[in-house]
Amino acid sequence: MAKPLKIGIAGLGTVGGGVLQILRRNADLLETRCGRPVVVTAVSARSRGKDRGADLSGLRWYDDAAALAHDPEVDVVCELIGGSDGVAKALVETALANGRHVVTANKALLARHGTALALAAESRGLTLAYEAAVAGGIPVIKGLREGLAANRVREVHGILNGTCNYILTEMRTTGRDFADVLADAQRLGYAEADPGFDIDGVDAAHKLAILTAVAFGCQVDFDAVHVEGIRHISSLDIQYADELGYRIRLLAIGRRTERGIEQRVHPCMVPVGSPIGATDGVFNAVVADGDFVDKVVLVGRGAGAGPTASAVVADLLDIAQGRRTPTFGVPAERLVPLPASPIDSRRGRYYLRLMVVDRPGVIADVAALLRDHNVSMEAFLQRGRAPGEAVPVVLTTHETDEAAMQRALAQIGALDTVLEPPRLIRIEDF
Amino acid sequence: MAKPLKIGIAGLGTVGGGVLQILRRNADLLETRCGRPVVVTAVSARSRGKDRGADLSGLRWYDDAAALAHDPEVDVVCELIGGSDGVAKALVETALANGRHVVTANKALLARHGTALALAAESRGLTLAYEAAVAGGIPVIKGLREGLAANRVREVHGILNGTCNYILTEMRTTGRDFADVLADAQRLGYAEADPGFDIDGVDAAHKLAILTAVAFGCQVDFDAVHVEGIRHISSLDIQYADELGYRIRLLAIGRRTERGIEQRVHPCMVPVGSPIGATDGVFNAVVADGDFVDKVVLVGRGAGAGPTASAVVADLLDIAQGRRTPTFGVPAERLVPLPASPIDSRRGRYYLRLMVVDRPGVIADVAALLRDHNVSMEAFLQRGRAPGEAVPVVLTTHETDEAAMQRALAQIGALDTVLEPPRLIRIEDF
Ligand SMILES: NC(=O)c1ccc[n+]([C@@H]2O[C@H](COP(=O)([O-])OP(=O)(O)OC[C@H]3O[C@@H](n4cnc5c(N)ncnc54)[C@H](OP(=O)(O)O)[C@@H]3O)[C@@H](O)[C@H]2O)c1
Ligand SMILES: NC(=O)c1ccc[n+]([C@@H]2O[C@H](COP(=O)([O-])OP(=O)(O)OC[C@H]3O[C@@H](n4cnc5c(N)ncnc54)[C@H](OP(=O)(O)O)[C@@H]3O)[C@@H](O)[C@H]2O)c1
Repeated sequence: MAKPLKIGIAGLGTVGGGVLQILRRNADLLETRCGRPVVVTAVSARSRGKDRGADLSGLRWYDDAAALAHDPEVDVVCELIGGSDGVAKALVETALANGRHVVTANKALLARHGTALALAAESRGLTLAYEAAVAGGIPVIKGLREGLAANRVREVHGILNGTCNYILTEMRTTGRDFADVLADAQRLGYAEADPGFDIDGVDAAHKLAILTAVAFGCQVDFDAVHVEGIRHISSLDIQYADELGYRIRLLAIGRRTERGIEQRVHPCMVPVGSPIGATDGVFNAVVADGDFVDKVVLVGRGAGAGPTASAVVADLLDIAQGRRTPTFGVPAERLVPLPASPIDSRRGRYYLRLMVVDRPGVIADVAALLRDHNVSMEAFLQRGRAPGEAVPVVLTTHETDEAAMQRALAQIGALDTVLEPPRLIRIEDF
Repeated sequence: MAKPLKIGIAGLGTVGGGVLQILRRNADLLETRCGRPVVVTAVSARSRGKDRGADLSGLRWYDDAAALAHDPEVDVVCELIGGSDGVAKALVETALANGRHVVTANKALLARHGTALALAAESRGLTLAYEAAVAGGIPVIKGLREGLAANRVREVHGILNGTCNYILTEMRTTGRDFADVLADAQRLGYAEADPGFDIDGVDAAHKLAILTAVAFGCQVDFDAVHVEGIRHISSLDIQYADELGYRIRLLAIGRRTERGIEQRVHPCMVPVGSPIGATDGVFNAVVADGDFVDKVVLVGRGAGAGPTASAVVADLLDIAQGRRTPTFGVPAERLVPLPASPIDSRRGRYYLRLMVVDRPGVIADVAALLRDHNVSMEAFLQRGRAPGEAVPVVLTTHETDEAAMQRALAQIGALDTVLEPPRLIRIEDF
């Protein structure tokens, strides 16, 4: 019988527990597929005593995760602890330094240290695999890196955070407000007690930085990602979006432009009928656009024990079968630091909502400011009248420059007939 | 510099021409990605004189495709001729016998001879790759075989023929009849002059047989596929589907049941909002359902030079980088002949349209026959009255057995108040 592949798992939480379960439940199937057993030999977590709903007898236990990297019965270290630095980083570095392959689900780590870790792995002929770090169970890394390898990629975009998409979907279907829906999501376990990483867009930005590197063969550059979250999205904007034929999504976009690579995460209006517009609830969706293949869409579950562990185990099987691909699609030492195109250079359409005093001349003032900045209005909506009182006014623009739009916005916001900070949402017509 | 991978291309039509173009236009990118040049050294097609819009000078030309397999400067043979037997089969067999890897887009060949060819390839340590054969540019083979490898797959289904989907979409949006839209599609190049393979479901069945083997690790069994095409779909049924909240799609379904593996291609009603229902026009869509990952959806272009060649070149890059996976996901000699579950064993819901004489008692007769066969009605629609004349009557059933449904149908069709053969369309509530 062929030599088993021996796995050490660090972190036995949601994902680590899932990996244990797959490797046990589907052991025969996996052995048939890859021609050798894939077995867990050692584990590490914080509290040894915790009931993990799985039998750990027969597995070596380490209080210190990094010790996994020294266990001679560990070929691959699964880092399923989390965090961009600290234990996780130390573990991955130690594992690679000790000739162990690494599989991780840790997007924060790769977004911050992806290029350096890829260099460390590749210089030693080791695999650093991370399918689970982006879009959970959906095979987006392999799909892009191996599946679309023939293409020069023009753009990749998607819904990369299921928590935000769940909240936005709930807000639309129930008409309830952000804070309300968030509280519910926390109760249901769809959002963390500290929801900042998700709802402020950081988690999606981590994933985007990784996806961008794979799509364009450039170094991972998390700091170049423009990030906005969904806290300021109101149910009023969601209603207007509906009326205009759009859905509001927290979108992550990586795009090759003449000025460099755009990387941005922010709320967008997208057409209801587009694949992204049609993706409701906790699901993730990724669209990749290649010069020969055109657009390919992948949709599925972006989180949860089963889907995330499915991706981790797929990476383990690549290692078991000796399938190797450069970490980010091109050899790490050839990853280039592509120039970042700042959000100011975006060209596109905009949705703008103002709370104004309902009196003659207000719209004329707004229109004049837009004209002064060369922003051309496409549509304008004012439902209902309330002379002298505050009313919402909504407009959409034709394609224009972000910089011009922001300048106009600053002046519009300063009008004394405009009562609240204007709400701007970018429109992407995929 | 690393040794180039040398390609011999047999067939320089739509797909072959596309492969030549990618390998030239993206040569630098591909070399960066896989660390070695991928170059075409030899080609073969029928007519040497034909202008192929590409410079063939410097490439060896063979009138006899099988000669490619003997050229010492050919590491990989791309079989892009087509056909389940004849030249294509001879070429692939010769190539494998002579130690050449094979990449093909030929679903007919694999549906008929997939298991034997996989054995031939694997016994010699060679790759037989066929990403382009199913769903064109969408990486469904790699997505399922490598991406979802951790899962026991429960089901795979999808739209695998863009021509049929284009015709059904056009029928719906224009209200025109099948024959009309088909003629148009032929004029536009979306359908072949001889459209049988597409519209009678054979092409989708070829692809399904391949997908089923990958999904369930069983031998390719094209003869076990139940096949119906879309010729009998009328615009009336499309209208009724709309009214009931469904879209009509030519669906390919591979499902693991207690009785064995179901493989069927036939028109289905699917919910408008499902990923399959939302896939309009020439696009393909594949949904795979795994025990841990749940449902993953892949959508994109299923045909055309660019997308299909994109898949062929992805396979070439796997070979260039030495990535190997058993042809159908498990080693060919371990593929099992899984028992086929016949269409008669299907359980599900049904749509039934009858043209009946509009007179009292007709519906009661139909309802009685359904009851006699234990088929329970879910909804019933009769729009408009025309006493004594022919009117359409539509009904849907609750979940029932295909066998019972067919028995009821035979008796209903024999009623003399039923004027035309009843139209049955299966409903799949994904
Ligand atoms: N959850 C998802 O759906 C999902 C999806 C995609 C990616 N990810 C990523 O997967 C990783 C793990 O996430 P998770 O949801 O599984 O987290 P989790 O449920 O909080 O589990 C974390 C695990 O790490 C262990 N741990 C913490 N500090 C440790 C230390 N110093 N040494 C050894 N073990 C330590 C914990 O031990 P105790 O159990 O003893 O406390 C726990 O078992 C993260 O990078 C996350 O971003 C998660
Ligand atoms: N077209 C698509 O979008 C698509 C999508 C997926 C899969 N496929 C598959 O890809 C394969 C090729 O399809 P295609 O659309 O490219 O077909 P095509 O345009 O008809 O091209 C067929 C090519 O094969 C050549 N050929 C025919 N007989 C030959 C022989 N005896 N020896 C050498 N060459 C021969 C032809 O030569 P001449 O040019 O000299 O006539 C032609 O170049 C088929 O298996 C098809 O099912 C096609």
